[in-house]
Amino acid sequence: MKQSQLFGKTLKDTPKDATIISHQLLYKGGFIRESTAGRYYFLPLGLLVHQKIQKIIKEEMDATGAQEMITPVMHPKQLWEETNRTDSVGFELMSIKDRSETEFVLGGTAEEMLVDLVRRFQVSYKDLPMNLYQFSTKFRDEKRARGGLLRMREFVMKDAYSFHGDEKDFKLEYEKMWQTYTKIFQRMGLKTVVVESDNGYIGGEYCHEFVVESEIGESQFFTTEDGTYAAHEEVARFQRDSKNLDEAEKKMEQVSAERGNTMEDGVKLHDLPLWQQMKDLMMVDEKGNIILAVVRGDYDINEVKLAHVVTAYALRHATEEEIREIGSEPGFISPVGMSESAAKAGKKIIIVGDTSLRTVKNMYTGANVKNQDLLNVNIDRDYTLDIEADIALAREGDLAENGKPLFAKKGIEVGNIFQLGFHYSSKMTGATFMAEDGSKQPYYMGCYGIGLARTLATVVEKYSDAKGIIWPEEVAPFKVHLISLKEDEKAEKIYKELLENKIDVLFDDRDIAAGAKFADADLLGMPYRLVVSSKAGEQIEVKKRSEDKAELMDLEEVIKILKK
Amino acid sequence: MKQSQLFGKTLKDTPKDATIISHQLLYKGGFIRESTAGRYYFLPLGLLVHQKIQKIIKEEMDATGAQEMITPVMHPKQLWEETNRTDSVGFELMSIKDRSETEFVLGGTAEEMLVDLVRRFQVSYKDLPMNLYQFSTKFRDEKRARGGLLRMREFVMKDAYSFHGDEKDFKLEYEKMWQTYTKIFQRMGLKTVVVESDNGYIGGEYCHEFVVESEIGESQFFTTEDGTYAAHEEVARFQRDSKNLDEAEKKMEQVSAERGNTMEDGVKLHDLPLWQQMKDLMMVDEKGNIILAVVRGDYDINEVKLAHVVTAYALRHATEEEIREIGSEPGFISPVGMSESAAKAGKKIIIVGDTSLRTVKNMYTGANVKNQDLLNVNIDRDYTLDIEADIALAREGDLAENGKPLFAKKGIEVGNIFQLGFHYSSKMTGATFMAEDGSKQPYYMGCYGIGLARTLATVVEKYSDAKGIIWPEEVAPFKVHLISLKEDEKAEKIYKELLENKIDVLFDDRDIAAGAKFADADLLGMPYRLVVSSKAGEQIEVKKRSEDKAELMDLEEVIKILKK
Repeated sequence: MKQSQLFGKTLKDTPKDATIISHQLLYKGGFIRESTAGRYYFLPLGLLVHQKIQKIIKEEMDATGAQEMITPVMHPKQLWEETNRTDSVGFELMSIKDRSETEFVLGGTAEEMLVDLVRRFQVSYKDLPMNLYQFSTKFRDEKRARGGLLRMREFVMKDAYSFHGDEKDFKLEYEKMWQTYTKIFQRMGLKTVVVESDNGYIGGEYCHEFVVESEIGESQFFTTEDGTYAAHEEVARFQRDSKNLDEAEKKMEQVSAERGNTMEDGVKLHDLPLWQQMKDLMMVDEKGNIILAVVRGDYDINEVKLAHVVTAYALRHATEEEIREIGSEPGFISPVGMSESAAKAGKKIIIVGDTSLRTVKNMYTGANVKNQDLLNVNIDRDYTLDIEADIALAREGDLAENGKPLFAKKGIEVGNIFQLGFHYSSKMTGATFMAEDGSKQPYYMGCYGIGLARTLATVVEKYSDAKGIIWPEEVAPFKVHLISLKEDEKAEKIYKELLENKIDVLFDDRDIAAGAKFADADLLGMPYRLVVSSKAGEQIEVKKRSEDKAELMDLEEVIKILKK
Repeated sequence: MKQSQLFGKTLKDTPKDATIISHQLLYKGGFIRESTAGRYYFLPLGLLVHQKIQKIIKEEMDATGAQEMITPVMHPKQLWEETNRTDSVGFELMSIKDRSETEFVLGGTAEEMLVDLVRRFQVSYKDLPMNLYQFSTKFRDEKRARGGLLRMREFVMKDAYSFHGDEKDFKLEYEKMWQTYTKIFQRMGLKTVVVESDNGYIGGEYCHEFVVESEIGESQFFTTEDGTYAAHEEVARFQRDSKNLDEAEKKMEQVSAERGNTMEDGVKLHDLPLWQQMKDLMMVDEKGNIILAVVRGDYDINEVKLAHVVTAYALRHATEEEIREIGSEPGFISPVGMSESAAKAGKKIIIVGDTSLRTVKNMYTGANVKNQDLLNVNIDRDYTLDIEADIALAREGDLAENGKPLFAKKGIEVGNIFQLGFHYSSKMTGATFMAEDGSKQPYYMGCYGIGLARTLATVVEKYSDAKGIIWPEEVAPFKVHLISLKEDEKAEKIYKELLENKIDVLFDDRDIAAGAKFADADLLGMPYRLVVSSKAGEQIEVKKRSEDKAELMDLEEVIKILKK
């Protein structure tokens, strides 16, 4: 393509809100433009990269035997009601009605659509496993779009859905997708860490994020140094160290406690360690249930783990009024006697305690009364839990279950794979296959997603320098940037010869200064720069974008290298 | 691909609402499934054809120098307000609000989006012309979806938008697109008629539909036998033949007329020809303006032409009450004295007459009073028109302006090309380029669309027989259908050899009866059927889907033919 005809000019400045490298470079290079927040135009150069990413994903998915198809974007809302997903407020669903008042949602993911399709066919055990995927536009009504292509409201996702006769067969596919994703990202030059993570609104029991380490990433995760364990902070499991378990249980006593409401105020007043204090958090779920969560004072409560344990979609902190109404007092909450106080107030409370409460003796905490604390509180003896579970946030330095210390990292989530199990097939009528014994059985499912635009931005985050982008070859919009320095006739001939050899080339045929051409070549980042100039004579100056040194070569030699 | 693993089984029956061939065959063959009315799943086979159609369009568009890019699907409604398109009720627009109450429309076409993008760049005359196109999902809230893929509510459209310095340059592009479209459809085996048509909600002054003749098509058009003129019935121009112009103008008289309200009642009562009667139609536009349209009695009023003439978005027939309120009478409407009657009633009326009113002397019509008619009414003498224009529907047999008789035809509209002129660039602020003299000028524009799914269905309409589809090679999901008749090992070898030779092949490796395999091959319609059987020995039975005779050949020979 001739650059004089290319739509999308390079610029020197970026918009104020472009704070991250990929946003800045993709804007300056004329790869993308924002329409409204989180919705982007892909200009010709940007779309070329997007298409190359799509091609890589398609090749690797097809190689696994997965089959491409496509669903409508507008999903009948009724299907989402079959699985209760319209209730999951955490999910940024957009609804729309047509002229006949039929309700639709704009697809965010397509589990229901795929099940609704597959259940129309008489699927037998012989047809399984089956993995169906699509590239289609997805919509998320995100609270805040950010960072150019990193968190969008509208984007193309490759989403795949697999159907299996049983868990064992599913696990083979899960492993296959794990390997395939690793390879897909490798081909784009991205090294991924595979991180256990939270299923969120997707459902199912476990899932993994493919994360590219990056300081600007939103995925916070923990990993051991050797990588044998990696998990999103929302789900990371870790060992609770024992504190004073050899201490004898002392008699519980209530003491006057003129103090502020913070944990530090308690530490100061009683002159006892933070870990000996209880941390009590009163929460309310989407149905109005009140939950008291308790952890050892030096840990924090992990609200995602807590929500899973109490099977809530969304949790919020209780208001001071709500705390008093149930018979407690802000800053002085305690599990001791709490169920009874609630019952007296005509209410119910669910007390959830972290396993860390078993690592300490003689804890101190509030007495559900203003300026009254309890000392020497011991689990089982002084209070009981409705649910005892892992509800604490891991911290850097905590030990993973395998005994190795955890390190905190940040990264960009570029893909994920989900076990769905029977989550959808059990909720949707007729989502069954005929088993070998002739009986009807629900399918065991998984799903697998990759966001294309975010992946594109991640490549730029990883491959750039002060001058611009350095595209890895497989995703570069053009392999070659051919620059004519006032040698247009000669360059034109070389351009044609490259095209005849089926080499992708962007030909800078513009009548502008050499410096501007070089700057653009560096900004746009094609892997090879070829310069035709009087200085080089009949030869061509060849430079890789990723290297500093340039070489003079004959055209024949250049073509040989480029066709490799 | 092995058929045993292909998702999407063939069926013998079709849903009741599948009344047209393409719907039936695409359903039976497992190419598509309906999600909700007008919204379809493309199963693997269907998507393959869709992708081949996309590939052909892309190749031909790229060859013209057009550049692919993509816009978001959700367009800010504000842009559509800039061009007043939210008012054009004829357009089936879907609106949606996001969580911050910002309004969007789901893109039906993308003129505003393209202009909004291009106006951000400092476009100079050197950058023009420029043709930008995309493949993207479009949404139309159609009153009635019909016919499988023929009228959908959600579909992928290739839409292109061109920008020019002046009309002359635009006309070159329009011609180029005309040729390109003809070639695109030819490659798919479709012969298109290029038909003048109505711009509808798109705007601009003229446009052309690419129509494939078909009895089930919704496009009604007229064409001369030699094809030198072809126009949609909504816009077809034709000559009005003179009737009794040599007759002297007689004195107008009002007579008692006890008759019914139809044209036939008038003919009977006065025993005069239908063509001598006036046909008067009272209409109301979207702003409430009342319009009286008048034509010669043997013609009908063309409401699309009428709407253009009075620049209305939507016209409806006036109610009997409205007719009386303005001082007339249903069944006895007449232009004579109508403006005065309306003024007396405190209202305004626009009287629009067809040019055919000049081909008759001494017409008869109502007298705006029940059971009173006027005889010997003559234009200019007895009444005047506010607008005199072409507002009549052509009929088969009428003469085109070139003097040749018109034939009525039906067809499927697979593409269209539009002159937009300054329609968008004049309405949208800053939609300018820098001209050679340094001044800012609005771009002169055109746009060009092809609906992919409808094109796909049209191919099936044209290429099928009683047994199934007969895909033209360029759009076939697979070039070859390889069938093993209990010779799986041999067939497997041949399958691999074909794949190694990069020949697309669907391999029927299923353990089912030969008859069922042959029936599927005929239904699915791959261009070549290869049968491996003990009967054929080491040879392969080769049959083209479009031909009856089969031949035995060696594999080597088969590959030679297929690689052609």
